Amino acid sequence: MALRGGIDLGGTKIEAVVVDDESRVLGSARHETPRDGGPPDVVRELASALHEAASAAGVDPAELAGVGVGSPGEVDTAEGTVARAANLPGWSDAAFPLAAALGEQLGTRVAVGNDVRLAVDAERLLGAGRTYRSFLGVWWGTGIGGAVVFDGRLWLGRGSAGELGHIVVRAEGRLCPCGRKGCLEAYAGRGAMERRARRAFAKGAKTNLFELMRKQKRDRLTSGVWAAALVRGDELATRLIDRAVWALGVGVGSAINLLDLEAVVVGGGLGTRFGVPGAERIAAAMQPHLFVPDRPPAVVVSELDDSGGALGAALLVADTT
Amino acid sequence: MALRGGIDLGGTKIEAVVVDDESRVLGSARHETPRDGGPPDVVRELASALHEAASAAGVDPAELAGVGVGSPGEVDTAEGTVARAANLPGWSDAAFPLAAALGEQLGTRVAVGNDVRLAVDAERLLGAGRTYRSFLGVWWGTGIGGAVVFDGRLWLGRGSAGELGHIVVRAEGRLCPCGRKGCLEAYAGRGAMERRARRAFAKGAKTNLFELMRKQKRDRLTSGVWAAALVRGDELATRLIDRAVWALGVGVGSAINLLDLEAVVVGGGLGTRFGVPGAERIAAAMQPHLFVPDRPPAVVVSELDDSGGALGAALLVADTT
Repeated sequence: MALRGGIDLGGTKIEAVVVDDESRVLGSARHETPRDGGPPDVVRELASALHEAASAAGVDPAELAGVGVGSPGEVDTAEGTVARAANLPGWSDAAFPLAAALGEQLGTRVAVGNDVRLAVDAERLLGAGRTYRSFLGVWWGTGIGGAVVFDGRLWLGRGSAGELGHIVVRAEGRLCPCGRKGCLEAYAGRGAMERRARRAFAKGAKTNLFELMRKQKRDRLTSGVWAAALVRGDELATRLIDRAVWALGVGVGSAINLLDLEAVVVGGGLGTRFGVPGAERIAAAMQPHLFVPDRPPAVVVSELDDSGGALGAALLVADTT
Repeated sequence: MALRGGIDLGGTKIEAVVVDDESRVLGSARHETPRDGGPPDVVRELASALHEAASAAGVDPAELAGVGVGSPGEVDTAEGTVARAANLPGWSDAAFPLAAALGEQLGTRVAVGNDVRLAVDAERLLGAGRTYRSFLGVWWGTGIGGAVVFDGRLWLGRGSAGELGHIVVRAEGRLCPCGRKGCLEAYAGRGAMERRARRAFAKGAKTNLFELMRKQKRDRLTSGVWAAALVRGDELATRLIDRAVWALGVGVGSAINLLDLEAVVVGGGLGTRFGVPGAERIAAAMQPHLFVPDRPPAVVVSELDDSGGALGAALLVADTT
């Protein structure tokens, strides 16, 4: 039986799994993504997480049929490189040979794919998307990722499809981490929201966000910190999340007007954290923008939770999907 | 040899053709769309235009294998009805049985489809889209229509795909003829631009637009009137068209970020009127919004000109496409 490895490389955490040929998880591990350094530090952490997952599965990484990695940034699957991963430390414009570097450390074949696309592909095959022929994956996390499934197949475009976070929801609006203005991600990405919260806090805004962050022993506003602040009725957190939901409604509504898909599958760190109530809020925020309002798409939550990205990554090195 | 009829029902004009089984035009006619009355008046004008085209082809309408009609509004192809065609006179929310009413007048089978979708389908088979596997049709006219071709096939969604005009480009922005705010069409649709020009003129803005309109014996700001005003350097016209191009850049750029298509085919009344220079302006306006800026899609002009919509409509009643 050929075992495979899958790693989801996120802005906050690294999730690694070892699976069998029916995508059952035999071992897993979760590490924090390095906040400093550069690509070599990230590669070391990826290798360490995969080693841990393999060890839990009772296998050596070199015995795996291969390891897939889902990465943010501009992924060149053919070359195995990643460039411009704004949410990873020291990952500049230059393309870094991630597949080669990690393959050397693990002693097995490594393939790299777009993180969100792989997570959505896992939902298509194994999760919340399996009952729909067409759907939009909305990955609400440090950034806003997306992927579109048409007729049961993931649409790749010319290789770069799915940049839902860079749909413009308000031209000439807020500055986005990508350097452009008014993108969905500028309003709804966790990274952009944290920047905004830090600025407001520095200017004297009253908020418990940073106290909660310290209590949870974090140095970033993770999904858990945001959720805790909302439960406490924190004003700044509530305002920023309200605006994020509003922007998601605009962006997702625009995509549905263009594509008239059956469903929207919401995933990512914040998406899974806020769960069904979060999906319902996005559906309500989308509704006023729908050109055909009496037949909205179903809005559902991803089912594979934190392991979806890693499971999708492991599909990259599967013989058949 | 089975001859077919095709009619493009636009907000300004009605274009009718009679074609042979290789889509060669044997007869054609162009009428103005009624500005007053209601659906029955529009049906009479459609019948009259088709009669004229059939007469030019030396055939009686009743001898045709069928007649296809491309219509704006909400088209139900299965039922042959059209509802909410905001740019047609007296066409309220209720679904009007266009296929049945026109079929009775012509004595042949009538099928109804979405106007833009049919025009884009004609470009896919016979025009500017035939060399691309994937493209976005951008129909810049009284409204802004769209249609997406994936892997050489028109994407229908659940029947209502292609509402590019109602992608939100500036949330909470300008009021759109659809009643929502900030849609692409609110900035770039000819109908919305005319409303804005009339309001500015009433408030004393200096413009030659309405003088040119009278000189051209029109009572609407047609594509020809806009083009003439631009040539004369009319300030109001220049400002409104600049804003329209800006909005098209935002909306089309967003769609490309999500779908990464090979090409954009620009058609519609204003799109064909402004031709290659217009397409180049849209390409330039889109460029700053592209997430992958170094590989923009080709932006080309539709090739079938005014007859594309009618040719596409005739495809509706063809045995094979």
